[in-house]
This record gives sequence, structure tokens and C-alpha cells, in this order.
Amino acid sequence: MKTSISTPIKAIALATLCFSGSALADKVLLKTPIAFGTHLPALGTPIKWVSERIQPVSGNTIKMKVYEPGKLVAPLEILDAVSSGKVNSGYATAGYWQGKMPAAALFSAVPFGPEAPEYMAWMFYGNGLKLYQGMYDEAGYNVKVLPCAIISPETSGWFKKPIEKPEDLKGLTMRFFGLGGQVMEKLGVGTVQLPGGEIFGALEKGAIDASEFSQPAIDQRLGFHKIVKYNYFPGWHQQATMFELLINKDTWNKMDEDQQSAVETLCLASMTNSIAEGEAMQFEAMQKAQEQGVELRYWNEEMLNLFESTWLEVVEEQKKDPYFAKVWADMSDFRKNYQIWESKGFLPRGQ
Amino acid sequence: MKTSISTPIKAIALATLCFSGSALADKVLLKTPIAFGTHLPALGTPIKWVSERIQPVSGNTIKMKVYEPGKLVAPLEILDAVSSGKVNSGYATAGYWQGKMPAAALFSAVPFGPEAPEYMAWMFYGNGLKLYQGMYDEAGYNVKVLPCAIISPETSGWFKKPIEKPEDLKGLTMRFFGLGGQVMEKLGVGTVQLPGGEIFGALEKGAIDASEFSQPAIDQRLGFHKIVKYNYFPGWHQQATMFELLINKDTWNKMDEDQQSAVETLCLASMTNSIAEGEAMQFEAMQKAQEQGVELRYWNEEMLNLFESTWLEVVEEQKKDPYFAKVWADMSDFRKNYQIWESKGFLPRGQ
Repeated sequence: MKTSISTPIKAIALATLCFSGSALADKVLLKTPIAFGTHLPALGTPIKWVSERIQPVSGNTIKMKVYEPGKLVAPLEILDAVSSGKVNSGYATAGYWQGKMPAAALFSAVPFGPEAPEYMAWMFYGNGLKLYQGMYDEAGYNVKVLPCAIISPETSGWFKKPIEKPEDLKGLTMRFFGLGGQVMEKLGVGTVQLPGGEIFGALEKGAIDASEFSQPAIDQRLGFHKIVKYNYFPGWHQQATMFELLINKDTWNKMDEDQQSAVETLCLASMTNSIAEGEAMQFEAMQKAQEQGVELRYWNEEMLNLFESTWLEVVEEQKKDPYFAKVWADMSDFRKNYQIWESKGFLPRGQ
Repeated sequence: MKTSISTPIKAIALATLCFSGSALADKVLLKTPIAFGTHLPALGTPIKWVSERIQPVSGNTIKMKVYEPGKLVAPLEILDAVSSGKVNSGYATAGYWQGKMPAAALFSAVPFGPEAPEYMAWMFYGNGLKLYQGMYDEAGYNVKVLPCAIISPETSGWFKKPIEKPEDLKGLTMRFFGLGGQVMEKLGVGTVQLPGGEIFGALEKGAIDASEFSQPAIDQRLGFHKIVKYNYFPGWHQQATMFELLINKDTWNKMDEDQQSAVETLCLASMTNSIAEGEAMQFEAMQKAQEQGVELRYWNEEMLNLFESTWLEVVEEQKKDPYFAKVWADMSDFRKNYQIWESKGFLPRGQ
């Protein structure tokens, strides 16, 4: 009879211990389709990193199952799928939704925009994050957004011949993505959007003359250097690219505060990790490209100024969208203030 | 009799639920003396931020109690106190231990050293973290080290008169900290180390002619602008400063994997947060200083080159310590490789 008395006491002891923590929080399985394969360094590795750590930081109350691009939801349909509850989360970059909401581009990568530290300053200590969530809310999407990785600059493309003056661009056919593509169009370049896997073949057949895709370490894997030998820097169109974890808002609201805090903390940690990874992996690829006969060139001042003034023309057009105008004004105001610090705080960059 | 049968079942159900998580991990209270008051933005705010989030990300198995500077352990005694187990953790910057281990300076802030993104790349994707822990291990300290914040550049000081040529430095008495202070000594400056709270009085009485302390937003609070009107940039002696959470190694080893992962993740998150905070808060202070009649000046090329060549003389002296030599060689090798990326990847900085 001793056991029948002690059992309820044990039960109470266990219950007390558990209730003091979050062990009785509803468990959540985040089914997470992603826009970039986890084999791609910096583009795809951060969400894998997040998924591996989400159990310990949530007290084992959240799991994440990552679905490679297209396996569950096509990349361009992730936002709709998360909002409608078809899946409860997704990982992408907001630039993918710029067709639905022009302002989305400004939360992804801004031509002549901030580098990672300034971008994060605006996002977390300026109005960035409030405007980011506000954009989805006003457009009627039922999602919670968390910046969840940020990576270093892209290159601005691979060309068959040197591009030294504006005329050298005219008539080229080039793979180019996003707002930067609109700049190139204005400069007489015919742009096409091709997924990464199709670019090499298109260059080889001569269907395109030039291409931008991503960072040196990623471009290296796609083999562009075998066909086109002029790789231009800096990537004025993407000095930093931010990635987002979208969570269905009903799912988010059902999480308790500890779970929400765990996800937020993990996404912030992922930003440190992705900056470090992105900054560490480019130089080896660039050294290798040089060994393979690639010329690494920096745009001359005339070309950079042309890209920038043309970008400002694109901005004027995009500002017809009120939310784009609102975000642009806020970001520009922050950046104007930041300039005094940017120009004085740092040592000249090594040449 | 129904209850007496169902009770053990409930007990088993609860037990199963709990054991699947970390709710039965040993609870840990981290008593954490700190080297900088939590009222100081960027210097002290990050550890407060960490202490507020450690419960949710550890499934309520870890708490942190922060002790303001000197309340439990004096700042310069934190390392010894954590190692001996007098306290089980502490928050400081490794530069505080450079008297015991010269290499420690290289894990804190390096004159003419990397900015935050490059520093984190070396730390987490180069050999930085391995060498950092190795330094404590080889010196016999019983601590686990976690980089737990990183902040943006300091200014390089406040002067009564413009400093335009090397001769202008000779004979000055200046408050200066750390390795940068050794550079100033070589250039004919008599340096003293004063805590932040004593600098204003020393300037006022004329006991010192000049002072460096920290970032614009922090210097602003100390009121230097009321006495000395020439504030020089960039802070060549501290382009990024890293902060560390030290945990007694026995305490660390007793934590389970989930707890260790939670602390590591939170410290990485704190790095994102502290970069964002540090980058966001300087411009307002600089604008205010200008309104107060301060001249914000950028060192001319001759002076910057002089600081750098003198710093390399200091390095040669420090390299007599084998571990300093080892870390310096590794960091220099990483930075040499990084240069091709640094020089090509980024847009010119705004002037």
C-alpha cells in the first residue's frame, strides 16, 4: 500500500517542477519551406543552422522541419502559403514579394543601400522592423516576420568584355534580378531572370552575354568563370541581403512568450552567424577565380555614378506606391543622419 | 477506487512529457559581476539584455544575476574570481587581462584591426575562437569563454588644440587605455589610465591635456566637450571592441547540452543586438557635439600612417610573448586573405 500513497506525491512533485518552466507549453512543429537550397553557403545554410538549434533554445517545445525549394511549396508562393496557413512558416527574402508589394524590396537588399551593420541599426534601433511588419499587416498578410539572416555583398556581375563606359552596356543581354535589373534596363541592357542552375547553359549558348547571380563563393560553384572572364565589383545592387523567417500569425499568437522569445533570439543569433560565414568565405573564391584567369575589376567612378543616378530614377518611379515612399523616406532619413558617423568613425578601407 | 488507478497513469504521463525536454536539467544561477555599469549604452547594456533573456531560451533552467562593477568583484579581478569559482561567471573584455596574458588584447580590440564583420568572421569561421579559449586553457584558467557582444568604433580622443603633425603630440599628458596607449607613449605622450568618472575633473584641473575614453554617445555623457573642443576620428586604436562572458568551467561542464546551446545562442544574438545599438546611437551624439561647438576632425594621412607604423613597433615588442605571436600570426594571415574581398566587395564609404 506504500506505493499507492507515494505515487500521487511524486505526481505533484513532477507537476510543480514542470509548471515552473515552459515544459507544458503547446509543442509546435514549424513546417518550413525555403527559397534557397540548404547546400548553398550563406543563402541556404542559415536556416539549416536555425533548424538545428531551435529545440534546445525553446526548451524542446519547438521543432522545425525544413523543406528544400519546391518540395512542399514553390519559392514564390511561400508568403501566400504561410499567410493562408497551408504551412505555418517559411524562409525567403522579402525581395521575392516585390511584385505584390514594391516596398518589400527595401527589406531585402537596397541598391546603394546600407551595409549589414547600418542595415541592422535601422532595422532594430530605427523604424525598420516596425515598417517591415506593418507592410505585411497593411497588405492583409497574416504573418509575423523575423529578420533571420543577413549576408555580405554580391558581385555585380560577369561580362565577356571590359565595361568601361556607359556605351559598353548598350545592347547586352544579361541575367539580372530585382531593382538592380530595372537600373540595367534603363541603361540599355535587355535583362532576363533565370534561376541559378540555368545561367551557365545560357552563357555557353550565347543566349545571354552577361550575368549577375550572387556572391563570389556561390558564383564559383556555378562555373561562370569558365566562359566569362570579367567579374565586376562592388555589387552596388546588393551590399547586404536580409532573409526572413515568416510565421503564420495564428501560430505565432498561440506560442507562449518564452517560445516567441526563443525564436526571436535564435534569429538574431543567426544574423551574427551568417555575417561571419559570408565574410569568411569570399576571399578564397576570389583567389581561385584569379588563378583561373578571371579579372576582378572594380567599377570606375563614372560607371558607379551612372548606376547610382539611374537607381534614383527607379526610386522615383517606385515611390508612386505609398508604402514604398514611406519606407524609403524613413530609411533615407536614418541614412542621412548615419552619414556623419560613417564618414568619421571608420578607418579607410584597405586597398 | 477509480482515482487510485488513474493517478499513477497521470504521473507517468507527466513524467514522459517532462523528461523529453530539459525541464529536469540542473538549474543554474549565474552570479555575474560585470566590468561596465549597465547604465552605459553599448558598454553595459548588452549583458543586461542577455540576463533578461536567459530564462526563456534556457527553458527556465538558467537565471543570471548581474552585479554592477565593484559590488561583488572588482572589474580587474573578474577573471580570477570566475576561474577560482568565487563566482561562476563574469562579463568583461579580454583587454582587462593583458597584464597577465599579452595576447588577451587581441581578443578585445586591435589597433588598425578588423571592423566587426571581419572580426566575427575570424572569430567564428577562422581560428579566433579556438585560440581565444586556448589562451585561457594554456594559462591555467578554469574558464569557458563566449564572445557575447561587439561594439562599433571609439573616437580616438579629445584635445585642446588641433593635432596636425607629429610634433603636436609631444609633451602632452593624455588619458589612454591599452595597446593604443603604448603607441602614444612612443610618440612622446605621457599617458595615464583614469576611470571614466575621473576624466572630466582631470581635464578641468589641467592634470591632463587630452583624453580618449569611448564612443561618441558615451563620451557625450561624460561632458568632455565642455572643456576640450577637438574630437578626433577615426578611433584607430579600437575599430571594434569585443566583450566576453566567462563561465567557470566546472559550472559549464555541469550544464547539459541544451543549456550550453542556449547560452551560446544568446551570446551570438547579443552580438547582433550590440552592433545594431552601437551603430544607431553615435550620430545623434556627434550632431549634438557639433552644436556645442566641438570640431569633429579626421586624422590626416601623415598622422594615421604614423600611428600605424608605431603600432607595428609595439606589435614587435609584444611578440616576445609566444602566445601573442601565435595569435597575431593567425589573425594577420586571415586579414591578408580578407583584403582582396575588403577592397573589392564594398562601395566606397560616404564622405
